[in-house]
Amino acid sequence: MRNILLLIEYDGTHYAGWQRQKKEKTVQEVLSHAIEQVIQEKVKLYGASRTDAGVHAFGQVANFKTHSNISVDRLLPAINFYLPPDITVKKVADGAETFHAQFCAKSKVYQYTLFNSWIRTSLNRKFCYVCGFQLCMDKMIAAAKYLTGTHDFTSFTTKARYEKDRVRTVKRLDIKKEGNYIYFTIEADGFLYNMVRTIVGTLIEIGRGKIAWENIKGILNTKDRKLAGPTAPAKGLCLMEVKYES
Amino acid sequence: MRNILLLIEYDGTHYAGWQRQKKEKTVQEVLSHAIEQVIQEKVKLYGASRTDAGVHAFGQVANFKTHSNISVDRLLPAINFYLPPDITVKKVADGAETFHAQFCAKSKVYQYTLFNSWIRTSLNRKFCYVCGFQLCMDKMIAAAKYLTGTHDFTSFTTKARYEKDRVRTVKRLDIKKEGNYIYFTIEADGFLYNMVRTIVGTLIEIGRGKIAWENIKGILNTKDRKLAGPTAPAKGLCLMEVKYES
Repeated sequence: MRNILLLIEYDGTHYAGWQRQKKEKTVQEVLSHAIEQVIQEKVKLYGASRTDAGVHAFGQVANFKTHSNISVDRLLPAINFYLPPDITVKKVADGAETFHAQFCAKSKVYQYTLFNSWIRTSLNRKFCYVCGFQLCMDKMIAAAKYLTGTHDFTSFTTKARYEKDRVRTVKRLDIKKEGNYIYFTIEADGFLYNMVRTIVGTLIEIGRGKIAWENIKGILNTKDRKLAGPTAPAKGLCLMEVKYES
Repeated sequence: MRNILLLIEYDGTHYAGWQRQKKEKTVQEVLSHAIEQVIQEKVKLYGASRTDAGVHAFGQVANFKTHSNISVDRLLPAINFYLPPDITVKKVADGAETFHAQFCAKSKVYQYTLFNSWIRTSLNRKFCYVCGFQLCMDKMIAAAKYLTGTHDFTSFTTKARYEKDRVRTVKRLDIKKEGNYIYFTIEADGFLYNMVRTIVGTLIEIGRGKIAWENIKGILNTKDRKLAGPTAPAKGLCLMEVKYES
């Protein structure tokens, strides 16, 4: 049996996230359906990351097993043919039998885009969060440095009871300003539910001066979600890359 | 009477262009209506450029006369309040009595975005034209150099009879490649109907090798639209800036 790997880009605006749900349209469901149209087989599709409703992906990874013998070169355009324009398969490859998009992932890279202006943007409105407060880059960078590394991130998830082990390793948390845009790039071995958006929401509060940056240590240690900042809106978030061993 | 200047950004996807039409929704109409809601006066709105259906703007300029005494600081958020998210007023200023957005413009800068790939993009799908052919940058740049300067651009407009004087001065025609993207930046003192899109369509044919770059001279001289390339799709085009004397 073949194990097919997919690299996927999507505009999450009109989806209730990645994972299949009973009533709402999801990326997993629409993509599974497109694949089934091509290979004429029922498919079980595994995604690397369960992106939330409204979150985008530039480099989501998924895999599925199949008996089909359609070549990867023909699968790619055929699957895209059955997909709506807001989902695109960018690469198709044959993988090792043991490859699993979620369990084999070593780390994931997310980018959060903030448009730091009192005036909204029309051209990029679906892919950034508009926030006009003056934000101190130095304070946000100091707090981000402290969050980097291995910590219990219970304070930075909205559904702590979902996961027993809430220790994650943040390998990178870069904040970069380009014109009116501020980009938060976060790489970790795994993320708790809403973790990136809560980290960004907290860093914004720190940048505004609503939370002192030195408090970030206390927020982590008390493991209390109420001490962190609000969850930043989904539309600013994009799954950029999923990294694997080889 | 005050003369109010506006700097406007819009996602043109759902509009039949700038200029008011009888049956279809246009930017001029929607923006006029929003202004009228705020100042409670009928408004005559003049735009610098009559962008086509589906064309975007990062820096359209418009002006209107009014008896209203609402300050520019209050006009900006008030007008945006009445605008849909795909149109944004970015600046409001009081201008000289004689200022006219269209007639006082010294030059306009357009950018055309081409995604040079056989695989489409979902995230940026509304703001670029996807074209997979291998394109020779050197040939396109050589042809672009020839188009720069003062020429009769009759071969590069789809409705030549609309304008008597078809001589325009192209001040700049830059082509830049960044990853899969190719950006065409064109500045001229004025543009004929569909001129940018026909120039880009012709440069693509030259890049593909369908038209020899040396033929660009002949295409200009014969003043025959049929010799130029096809009109490139509207969604790749964006009005970046309108330049004025002061």
